[in-house]
Amino acid sequence: AGDKANGRTLVYTCNGCHGVPGTNNAYPQYPVPKIAGQNAQYIISALHEYKSGDRTHPTMMAQGQSLSDQEIEDIAAYLSSISPK
Amino acid sequence: AGDKANGRTLVYTCNGCHGVPGTNNAYPQYPVPKIAGQNAQYIISALHEYKSGDRTHPTMMAQGQSLSDQEIEDIAAYLSSISPK
Repeated sequence: AGDKANGRTLVYTCNGCHGVPGTNNAYPQYPVPKIAGQNAQYIISALHEYKSGDRTHPTMMAQGQSLSDQEIEDIAAYLSSISPK
Repeated sequence: AGDKANGRTLVYTCNGCHGVPGTNNAYPQYPVPKIAGQNAQYIISALHEYKSGDRTHPTMMAQGQSLSDQEIEDIAAYLSSISPK
């Protein structure tokens, strides 16, 4: 199971893009998705897809590759525990 | 720009999976993502990625292929206008 406290620390990185309303993806240009309150298992699935390259996005693939399976679970446990914004 | 009223009609289909808390994707098994209140441009980007096959998910690719560009904008206008759940 994910460790929410560790996830809270790890999402410091995510907030650089996902925590700022209206922050745009570089190309193609669109606001990055909201992730607060998202389903834990969907977050886990998405991060593993980026890590494996099944889902392609340069920044998110790099993030996925930098995370262990446990860290991905920790991030999902934290994000799914907070309210959507 | 998207037509919220038409989007509201179109999301009837989405709600079969996305509108029911805890509904699982078939394989790999995980809860489908929450989409209410998501950023409009992210929804547009995701549906176009499914439509083109850049993002692969059998059900969502079929949905993307069934939608016109205008219908995708309508869905995004509606979903981004409602509160996250």
